[in-house]
Amino acid sequence: MKRDKRTGSADLAVPARGLSRRGLLGLAGASVAGIGLGAAGDRVALAASASPGAASASAVYPFYGSHQAGIVTPAQDRLHFAAFDVSAGTTRAELIELLQDWTIAAAAMTAGQDIGEYGAVSGPYDAPPEDTGEAQGLPTAGLTITFGFGPTLFETADGVDRFGIAARRPADLTPLPHFPGDDLDAGRSDGDLCIQACSNDPQVAVHAIRNLSRIAFGRAALRWSQLGFGRTSSTSTAQATPRNLFGFKDGTANIKAEQPDVVNDQVWVSSSDGPAWLAGGSYLVARRIRMTIETWDRTILSEQETVFGRTKGAGAPLSGGTEFSEPDFTIAGRENQPLIGAAAHMRLAHPMQNKGMKLLRRGYNFVDGNDDLGRLEAGLFFISFQRSPAQFTTVQLNLAKHDALNEYIRHVGSALFVVPAGAADGAYVGSALFA
Amino acid sequence: MKRDKRTGSADLAVPARGLSRRGLLGLAGASVAGIGLGAAGDRVALAASASPGAASASAVYPFYGSHQAGIVTPAQDRLHFAAFDVSAGTTRAELIELLQDWTIAAAAMTAGQDIGEYGAVSGPYDAPPEDTGEAQGLPTAGLTITFGFGPTLFETADGVDRFGIAARRPADLTPLPHFPGDDLDAGRSDGDLCIQACSNDPQVAVHAIRNLSRIAFGRAALRWSQLGFGRTSSTSTAQATPRNLFGFKDGTANIKAEQPDVVNDQVWVSSSDGPAWLAGGSYLVARRIRMTIETWDRTILSEQETVFGRTKGAGAPLSGGTEFSEPDFTIAGRENQPLIGAAAHMRLAHPMQNKGMKLLRRGYNFVDGNDDLGRLEAGLFFISFQRSPAQFTTVQLNLAKHDALNEYIRHVGSALFVVPAGAADGAYVGSALFA
Repeated sequence: MKRDKRTGSADLAVPARGLSRRGLLGLAGASVAGIGLGAAGDRVALAASASPGAASASAVYPFYGSHQAGIVTPAQDRLHFAAFDVSAGTTRAELIELLQDWTIAAAAMTAGQDIGEYGAVSGPYDAPPEDTGEAQGLPTAGLTITFGFGPTLFETADGVDRFGIAARRPADLTPLPHFPGDDLDAGRSDGDLCIQACSNDPQVAVHAIRNLSRIAFGRAALRWSQLGFGRTSSTSTAQATPRNLFGFKDGTANIKAEQPDVVNDQVWVSSSDGPAWLAGGSYLVARRIRMTIETWDRTILSEQETVFGRTKGAGAPLSGGTEFSEPDFTIAGRENQPLIGAAAHMRLAHPMQNKGMKLLRRGYNFVDGNDDLGRLEAGLFFISFQRSPAQFTTVQLNLAKHDALNEYIRHVGSALFVVPAGAADGAYVGSALFA
Repeated sequence: MKRDKRTGSADLAVPARGLSRRGLLGLAGASVAGIGLGAAGDRVALAASASPGAASASAVYPFYGSHQAGIVTPAQDRLHFAAFDVSAGTTRAELIELLQDWTIAAAAMTAGQDIGEYGAVSGPYDAPPEDTGEAQGLPTAGLTITFGFGPTLFETADGVDRFGIAARRPADLTPLPHFPGDDLDAGRSDGDLCIQACSNDPQVAVHAIRNLSRIAFGRAALRWSQLGFGRTSSTSTAQATPRNLFGFKDGTANIKAEQPDVVNDQVWVSSSDGPAWLAGGSYLVARRIRMTIETWDRTILSEQETVFGRTKGAGAPLSGGTEFSEPDFTIAGRENQPLIGAAAHMRLAHPMQNKGMKLLRRGYNFVDGNDDLGRLEAGLFFISFQRSPAQFTTVQLNLAKHDALNEYIRHVGSALFVVPAGAADGAYVGSALFA
């Protein structure tokens, strides 16, 4: 199969020539022909000692595979998440070329290479460097780059099917409903495309988003972005459970990579779910959840534990046991009230209360300075992956209506994306959608 | 010497009773008497494995000493910096009590302990936890906490000497002059007090600022704050030179802890400088420098190197050699132009061009999302320590007038603080000012 530029039809392959001319223009006008992957920049080999933590610094996850990396990959410590809008006038062929360019660049960066033939720091001197260079000398630190498509990508604009994919839109890919208490900022919500970059080194994650933004120049522009500094979930049984900014362990009952049956059942879209191009993919929900830290900090310990339904120290269910003990929602205490109350966060989020539905959570703590009143602009950037958006909607409706935690949080940003399957080596991410 | 609450006079000691009643009120109203240091929360011992990087995670720097930590301490990877204003109506005695409370809390946290007698996760259940808890299970990761006083702390308000220290104000502690090109946001500038928290784990730095803010409740309120994720300077010869967001190595010629003569000459205020209470202290300059990343990224490599006066790869002076070679400003190239141009950043910042003056730089890269045009809100949060503000002013005037880099940067925040000497064990930070 050959790619036809005029009609915009494309096969699954990444062009052997490497980045497109437009991609190179995004890299600031490099005027060199035939730029491919950078042999120049083997960052991993340069200086693994420059990063804190040899073990996590040396982790390398392959970009190509049956599923995209960054979902069941053991959650890295740092996040840079970005949503993009495709620029007006961009054609289907140009969108495909962007995805091809992003694939080439993401495969290079996750392998610890610079972008481009010459990379960050070697010639030609009469052109802007192909790679911005701030990750020189840093190992990949487990970098993963995960791409998603928003509902608006499939929409018609002015009666025209923007990219010829309206008919291929998954039936489940509709904007999330309004949940009680939602206080959403459009400037922190939605988007045509998203990229989740995770790494154990924030500079590596920032470098990835920055260079992918450059490559998109003229084709897609940053709509909003979010940095996160502390993972709030474990996605592997090998990881200790981290704490959120309320000081509680978070993600104890999360789906773990070591549970392949659960992952298959709850995370990956199967070929029977439809549409066919989405098999092996997933749905990504992102929610910016502002925490009213100062109010929480004045709440007594017993109330905090009642709100979560767990002890603050060990993270054990209030019904007894240790962190990983199964909660018993029937045990009653004083005045015959259940030890884990009806409004406890962990009860309402439990699969038992949600038709057995689970989410693979992969969120991060954030602090974005402070507001005018001197309160920390802080909270949880929630990310979850699930086989169907209905899983999130079911759980979130339950929480939004009843969760005792609502007194201390406010959902201020929201987005839903469909995450295509991983790209086979040589193909581009999302190619099945355009095949 | 005994502290007299009525007159507000105070000796140098931290009260043996631990946090003040007001400090405890800040910790959300804990109604327990006699709260001291937390034996409960030996965080370091809990789970050093939870953090990436055993080496950097296990670092512990003592809080007490002749100089404050966080200045010549090997620069940690992450920053949370906060400026505070003392609340209206706060008395001298209350300010002293705040500094005592901050000292107790900082000594505990830098030693890996929780704040308070009961800490984050153990009783009493009818009171808010004394410590917010998100650092439970994390090692200190080299946490340092450094305190400073702004010029406004020494001012008179409505004709009244706010805290009875106007006469003790250092003659050098005047607001920085306006530099050409300054575009300062008052909301990101100045402050009565500052706290610099550095750690190799961002959650540990954030935890420190958050809990010190709580303790200040009713006495001082957060004015502005800044997170930084990548150190842009080395302060020890054992550290590799990091890169800024322009992709260049930064801080190659920085003052290093292993140069005690230079540190004494350029960083610490001596007893002959005056005032006496400031001996062993330093001056801290903070500048939020926004980088116009997108413009820079379209600049050709030779221009980028000309702007800095160094190669992008090795960071060597354009006059030749390797990263740590001394630049030769006299060598000329084509058309008899100097290889390191007259407007090159490294020439203008070099001590040779600044009466031999040096700065100990300790800045951090930041990315705070993006602006409405989709450009990354990114740059350098510059911090420098020096024996006199004149060192910074001399260098910055030189740069502000001539630096080729000015085309790509904008100073949007600015603050000057005086950093008192370190506290002796049992004394509180800044006690000499009030003695």
